[in-house]
Amino acid sequence: MVRLEIDQKSLKKALALLKTVVPSKSSNPLHTYVYLEAKDGTLSLRGTNGEVDLELSLPVQADGEGEALVPGEVLFGLSEGTSGERVALQLEEARLHLGAKTFRADLRVAPTGGYPEFVFPKEGEGIPLPAEAFSRGAAGVQYAASREEYYPILRSVQLELKGEGLRFVATDGYRLALYDLAHPVPFKKTVVIPVLSLGKVLYILDSVEAKEVALRFAPGVLGLEVAGEAFPMRVAVRLMEGTLPNYEHAIPKEFAAQVLVETQALKGALERLEVLTDKENRRLNFVLGEGYLHVSTKSESGEGKEEVPAQVEGALEFSVNAHYLLEALPKAERALIRLSGPVSPMVVAPGDGGGYRAVLVPLRV
Amino acid sequence: MVRLEIDQKSLKKALALLKTVVPSKSSNPLHTYVYLEAKDGTLSLRGTNGEVDLELSLPVQADGEGEALVPGEVLFGLSEGTSGERVALQLEEARLHLGAKTFRADLRVAPTGGYPEFVFPKEGEGIPLPAEAFSRGAAGVQYAASREEYYPILRSVQLELKGEGLRFVATDGYRLALYDLAHPVPFKKTVVIPVLSLGKVLYILDSVEAKEVALRFAPGVLGLEVAGEAFPMRVAVRLMEGTLPNYEHAIPKEFAAQVLVETQALKGALERLEVLTDKENRRLNFVLGEGYLHVSTKSESGEGKEEVPAQVEGALEFSVNAHYLLEALPKAERALIRLSGPVSPMVVAPGDGGGYRAVLVPLRV
Repeated sequence: MVRLEIDQKSLKKALALLKTVVPSKSSNPLHTYVYLEAKDGTLSLRGTNGEVDLELSLPVQADGEGEALVPGEVLFGLSEGTSGERVALQLEEARLHLGAKTFRADLRVAPTGGYPEFVFPKEGEGIPLPAEAFSRGAAGVQYAASREEYYPILRSVQLELKGEGLRFVATDGYRLALYDLAHPVPFKKTVVIPVLSLGKVLYILDSVEAKEVALRFAPGVLGLEVAGEAFPMRVAVRLMEGTLPNYEHAIPKEFAAQVLVETQALKGALERLEVLTDKENRRLNFVLGEGYLHVSTKSESGEGKEEVPAQVEGALEFSVNAHYLLEALPKAERALIRLSGPVSPMVVAPGDGGGYRAVLVPLRV
Repeated sequence: MVRLEIDQKSLKKALALLKTVVPSKSSNPLHTYVYLEAKDGTLSLRGTNGEVDLELSLPVQADGEGEALVPGEVLFGLSEGTSGERVALQLEEARLHLGAKTFRADLRVAPTGGYPEFVFPKEGEGIPLPAEAFSRGAAGVQYAASREEYYPILRSVQLELKGEGLRFVATDGYRLALYDLAHPVPFKKTVVIPVLSLGKVLYILDSVEAKEVALRFAPGVLGLEVAGEAFPMRVAVRLMEGTLPNYEHAIPKEFAAQVLVETQALKGALERLEVLTDKENRRLNFVLGEGYLHVSTKSESGEGKEEVPAQVEGALEFSVNAHYLLEALPKAERALIRLSGPVSPMVVAPGDGGGYRAVLVPLRV
């Protein structure tokens, strides 16, 4: 038996985070539970969906030790409703008592046998990183990952540790996005993170306003040790086997023309004109003029055109999928589009440098 | 041919409203178009889903007259992207030209033949009403309407004009909600509004921050003339045939006990305990004590209880569906629950008066 008291707000926040991982239904019923362990002045809460494991460690005033599995749905529901400053928990054989002000609940719990092991990497060197940098890199490229069933390895973001820095890469076979973070790392390594799992990790980092994250590696697992606002947290993500196909040769190194343009102005024009593109290719036609980029389109709905002021070098005409170009635009005031030819790959990057680059193939005429 | 110029913000707002009515797909393809008519310095825009017709009248500088059907999806998409102060429209045979700053579009349009007639009631006396009162009454009862397929008349809100005021009523056969607005009306009338159509009307009134609404009636149609922030607007809603079953006898007039309680405190307790109720009946058990309301529940997940401070008159035990009671709570600081017996209907109302009442039947023991 164990009795403990815990700050209501921390518990509520911890359970809200676990809810993003713990499924309400699963082919493995154990995944629908929250694993709860009280030990050495810490209440550990753990949840998993089989792909992402999340562990939160909350400081508590505890008397004794104990562990149990609590049905996630009931625990999340109760916690959302709790108010008051402190919550008292008492864990007994097969029951969890919970009290907050005049509210009392008495829940059936399950034994912990069979609950999946927490696969967080225990050994080896961690790579500390500002959480903001990790999120910026990963979030910057994830749009380019594939959503298609038939090529699983492309439904991922590849993380490359390269000595001088980290690189995030994603591609669906038609376009590519990469983000280079300058940050010395003590060893080389390439891992492939499923894009859905990465989405959960990014959501969690954002929710706790994480400051610092340490990356840890074990075979098949990426671990993130997170120092958040409220309590320490560890995330273990199951990796994919293999690596992305070699992509370096797809990135052009020489360019025949380039356009420097206000990102918002171009975005507005692309959004207006996208409505008038054909449904199949979403084709937009571009002409580089002196001091402007001329964008036009035509489909059975009608036609449209717009001139966007730009600094242009070279002369070229090309066509591109409006949706792909919109997604590829950098989160920067200005966008630099460099072209190697009317039907050769183009590179989209921030106008003022930074680690982001996108590679797109123009549509054939 | 007609040329006109229009304020970009008004046009954008008008099209955003029409988008809430005009479907992107429909078994009647004409419903996917926006009807556009320029005449006498006004641009009228109209959309319908066959149940709700919406007409917006925008003042314009026009040169000539004309009308056309424009594909809704294209028009909404274009308008969301437009910027600048003025939009120039030019309507020709089968084409609509649109220009804003350096953006130019040229859309295919369809002839207006076959487009549904606008059924707004033209004759008879209108009933002016603050839009806020109409919305408060309608929104206050719509939760009690049925969602079930098999009893269509209950999927509605009934509006009763009763001389001394207006009443909104909804019931799904298990519970009833009504809202009385004190507002003299010059004639008696009862109409039944489909609850989905009413939802659209409430959304539209809220979007335009409507100040005043005038109700108009024609056979099978309720008309609302709305004076909004930006431009005048008319809505025509197709009514259901028939009326709700007689419900007056279901409202108890004499009571054996009553409870006056802070709405938020009761709501919190109900939400916490609802998680622990059985899935079928969501049964919560209530005991009236001196100075408190004792709420408890028990299911296979566990059990829970809470005492809510209350002013209690009488002694009684009863059980009720947690979800139904939560939905029935008034939007007021305090809630008054009056009981006619442990298994007879109860009335839930604001503690400090007001037009709202809900009638619930307790669960049998």
